[in-house]
Amino acid sequence: MPYNPRSMDPTKYKDWEIAQEAEKYLPSVEEWVEKLGLEKDELIPYGKTPKLNFLKIMNRLKDKPDGKYIEVTAITPTPLGEGKTTVSMGLIQGLGVKGKNVGGALRQPSGGPTMNVKGTAAGGGNALLIPMTEFSLGLTGDINDITNAHNLAMVALTSRYQHECNYTDEELAKRGLRRLDIDPKNVEMGWVMDFAAQALRNIIIGLGGKKDGYPMQSRFGISVSSELMAILAVSRDLADMRERIGKITVAYDRTGKPITTSDLDVAGAMTAWMRNTINPTLCYSVEGQPVLIHAGPFANIAIGQNSIISDRLGLKLFDYVVTESGFAADIGFEKFWNVKCRLSGNIPNVSVIVATIRALKMHGGGPAVAPGRPLPAEYTEENLGLVEKGFENLRHMIGIVKKSGIVPVVCINAFYTDTKAEHDLVRRLCEEEGVRCAVSNHWMYGGEGAAELADVVLDACNEPSNYKPLYPLEMPLRQRVEMIAKEVYGADGVSWSPVAEAKAKKFEADPQFADFQTMMVKTHLSLSHDPTLKGVPKGWVLPIRDVLVYSGAKFLCPMAGDISLMPGTASDPAYRRIDVDVNTGEVSGLF
Amino acid sequence: MPYNPRSMDPTKYKDWEIAQEAEKYLPSVEEWVEKLGLEKDELIPYGKTPKLNFLKIMNRLKDKPDGKYIEVTAITPTPLGEGKTTVSMGLIQGLGVKGKNVGGALRQPSGGPTMNVKGTAAGGGNALLIPMTEFSLGLTGDINDITNAHNLAMVALTSRYQHECNYTDEELAKRGLRRLDIDPKNVEMGWVMDFAAQALRNIIIGLGGKKDGYPMQSRFGISVSSELMAILAVSRDLADMRERIGKITVAYDRTGKPITTSDLDVAGAMTAWMRNTINPTLCYSVEGQPVLIHAGPFANIAIGQNSIISDRLGLKLFDYVVTESGFAADIGFEKFWNVKCRLSGNIPNVSVIVATIRALKMHGGGPAVAPGRPLPAEYTEENLGLVEKGFENLRHMIGIVKKSGIVPVVCINAFYTDTKAEHDLVRRLCEEEGVRCAVSNHWMYGGEGAAELADVVLDACNEPSNYKPLYPLEMPLRQRVEMIAKEVYGADGVSWSPVAEAKAKKFEADPQFADFQTMMVKTHLSLSHDPTLKGVPKGWVLPIRDVLVYSGAKFLCPMAGDISLMPGTASDPAYRRIDVDVNTGEVSGLF
Repeated sequence: MPYNPRSMDPTKYKDWEIAQEAEKYLPSVEEWVEKLGLEKDELIPYGKTPKLNFLKIMNRLKDKPDGKYIEVTAITPTPLGEGKTTVSMGLIQGLGVKGKNVGGALRQPSGGPTMNVKGTAAGGGNALLIPMTEFSLGLTGDINDITNAHNLAMVALTSRYQHECNYTDEELAKRGLRRLDIDPKNVEMGWVMDFAAQALRNIIIGLGGKKDGYPMQSRFGISVSSELMAILAVSRDLADMRERIGKITVAYDRTGKPITTSDLDVAGAMTAWMRNTINPTLCYSVEGQPVLIHAGPFANIAIGQNSIISDRLGLKLFDYVVTESGFAADIGFEKFWNVKCRLSGNIPNVSVIVATIRALKMHGGGPAVAPGRPLPAEYTEENLGLVEKGFENLRHMIGIVKKSGIVPVVCINAFYTDTKAEHDLVRRLCEEEGVRCAVSNHWMYGGEGAAELADVVLDACNEPSNYKPLYPLEMPLRQRVEMIAKEVYGADGVSWSPVAEAKAKKFEADPQFADFQTMMVKTHLSLSHDPTLKGVPKGWVLPIRDVLVYSGAKFLCPMAGDISLMPGTASDPAYRRIDVDVNTGEVSGLF
Repeated sequence: MPYNPRSMDPTKYKDWEIAQEAEKYLPSVEEWVEKLGLEKDELIPYGKTPKLNFLKIMNRLKDKPDGKYIEVTAITPTPLGEGKTTVSMGLIQGLGVKGKNVGGALRQPSGGPTMNVKGTAAGGGNALLIPMTEFSLGLTGDINDITNAHNLAMVALTSRYQHECNYTDEELAKRGLRRLDIDPKNVEMGWVMDFAAQALRNIIIGLGGKKDGYPMQSRFGISVSSELMAILAVSRDLADMRERIGKITVAYDRTGKPITTSDLDVAGAMTAWMRNTINPTLCYSVEGQPVLIHAGPFANIAIGQNSIISDRLGLKLFDYVVTESGFAADIGFEKFWNVKCRLSGNIPNVSVIVATIRALKMHGGGPAVAPGRPLPAEYTEENLGLVEKGFENLRHMIGIVKKSGIVPVVCINAFYTDTKAEHDLVRRLCEEEGVRCAVSNHWMYGGEGAAELADVVLDACNEPSNYKPLYPLEMPLRQRVEMIAKEVYGADGVSWSPVAEAKAKKFEADPQFADFQTMMVKTHLSLSHDPTLKGVPKGWVLPIRDVLVYSGAKFLCPMAGDISLMPGTASDPAYRRIDVDVNTGEVSGLF
């Protein structure tokens, strides 16, 4: 344990300052080869952050039994987030302090939140992922690769549309092309960029002359919401990825038939841009435990969790793998439970539900919490009434995890403004639910501060897992959504817009969609579709306004309410305070 | 010399097949540390392609005398390109075969041409840069970093504009913001993407509600035309880069005053995204000579040459540095001569002017040459008349190089369809101009095939260089452009559009632009602004329609004619034939 968490007090130092201190103890590539028992060519160096050669390692360790599989989820968070990654890092460090062979498997952050108000997703305080700058600003380039491959499909679509407008069938044939008859009013894909660029949500492209494309309504989403990110998250290997990329629906022809990346002859080149993404990247906790980073965030609008590949790799390399499912148990955990684990076949042992006194108070009726504004006094002073009332949200989340058959553990992510009475109240309420509970001080003290959490999780790992999916794959789309809405979100039912219902009927009737997963798109700020409704909303109906089809990832994505695939940059975003030390190249201001 | 060029016949194997064979002999990182005499921490591994720590190496070698500095330029090319990089690689390999300590300093290719009809810029045949896939598809991420940093400035502009529309001065002040009063009709920057996406040339953004930005005409350029690429090409170090990034003009306020990245509080975060670009990447010729890769292409619309940093590093590491200036001597060489060398203070010894029999025939009146179409018979059969007439273009380019005081050498880049009589004719005509000439067969035979070229260049290096810029920095903008148009392009004069003239007058009157460089934007397919005029056009006037200002790079860019900062993807682009071997990850179809 080279870095000592007691040496940096997180109430005095910022995350990037703690990261820079801990990074002084970063092990070398050679040390990692030895520490993880790798062969030399299984580790591909990339500056400070090597990639691991997934196929080579899996092949070598295929007969080794898997480690224990621990998932981290949360109650409905405040817009500030409740430190799910901080808990994941704390738990990894805590198990490390207990001498366990533990590692993490987490997703890469998006440039959108990192540059905006939420910050990066490296944890915080002394429960932190390093190297923090590399992690926060592009890492080994996977999101850039996704962005390029995705936009290349749109270049192929829009240039093909132009040439089909400008050339006769004969002139197209001379170039080895047939007319695809693209319908510019029925385009499935948009462009992507990995920032929160709300001005690109609704755009018109193709203005100018006949060599400048043809006019079309279009849009940019955030890169991490790309279908290619979903494909990376669920692909088994490069062959699987290549096949899925070739099936992406880019647009439709004028008869309504899908036009895919293969129709546009661009799937091979897209895979070429994606070729390096198949291997997870190796990062570290500040206390030196390994963490595999792969795929992206945003469980509200995307799969939002790290890849199946990195979980599989972690389960071979480590005795305990800590992973995370993104946002709250209604959104991220539901996808982990019903999509990711079903696809991977990996059975989770424990789900840690992260709660904070802050979020419980909000659910109990505390005033609104907004990024960049000072917290109202309710959140910094003891208030047992708000905590007790807000527990209903946590109770609901415990119920969701229990339905999955995975053993739940509640973790109170302790803030230094919490009181002992508040913690004791939550402990007592958990006991009433028959659920293990631990208070964790990893933010302040690193792995040592997570000792109780580590013990409770180790104990829970001894229980058998009764994991089972919520619904069978044979269940039709609308019935699945109804089941998720009622049993997971607590809705009274589902209402379908005419567009969404027509699409749903089409998908249900077409056998090619029979093995597609259901990937809900819903706000994470409420159990309902309305982000202002806290606690456990009652007497509401989930509106589905559209269903996106990801025919490569094989997802049908029902969109609940007015959720956007492109977040917006706020008035006082993080980039205002980020800078570089021009002598050392060190980046300051990340959080 | 591990790879033997005689083992792969380029008339039978494609470039990517030759590259894959040669890559089997790629030296390890450790071998390069030894071979280049580096200290261990001066080399930062990045998969197959390490970066070199510029500052550390320069500091260690600051007292070492510089090597010889050899630039490669060309006659006006056909749209297929005349193999300037192939000659650069051949010359590097040829000097290597002669036992010289030689290295290259070249720019990274753009995804636009690589995915479109021109292909990558790795050379060809047995005069090829490896690893070709990495080189062609993003390398160590510099262009991605530029794309992200550039677009972050536009996110800052458009979101600030939205918040200024939605909030009062008081509400802005609460967020620590003052009203910049952005003029949406006077925005200097566009967004960037590194593909040829003509449908994004003219767009309208900010449609939707008041949280979706506000409507604005906008545009995407290709990433390599970004001002950030220009800044990378001319920066001395990270401090210089940070300062320049802070001075970029993003838009203007309603009084016409520039709004910079510093006004938007985004310059530090942009530099954070750019922090790794400062170090050049190390690649190799197929025969094992080192080549430093840094900055980007497109000398018609950008600086289009590798960085000053990589030239400086190369001159310390190698006895002979071969570099390239992009496109023809009127465009790339003019910028090398009057901008790059003036800024760097590095004095070139020799300029190699690349000519092909094909391009000479085109200038002599041969039929149009178009990518993706079979070459007319004139180009594959002997035609001395066309060659002799077309020599006028080469003669003009020789004249340009002579004006710079750098010693010119003509290299005939031999095609296997050329005849000896055609080569002999060019040799004789060069002799009449008093210029050294060599025929080079590097495409077929690698370094051995470039033996004559290597000898002629070594001989020319013994001559003293009388390098001097065309115009003094005190000369006002319009006079400089007139001088370049007349003395370099051969125009009768310059005509200014009202917009361009008004801007030019403003820039000339304002002392803050006194030390700005003049960076012409003009087609490379003709000495004139009209790409259809071949040979040496007479009796024409150069029209300047606008002047772009790059206030961070400190460039004023007069735009000649209808040149676009975003190329278009053709009907039969390269991406159609690119794919990945899903078992090995190897990419096929690059050229």
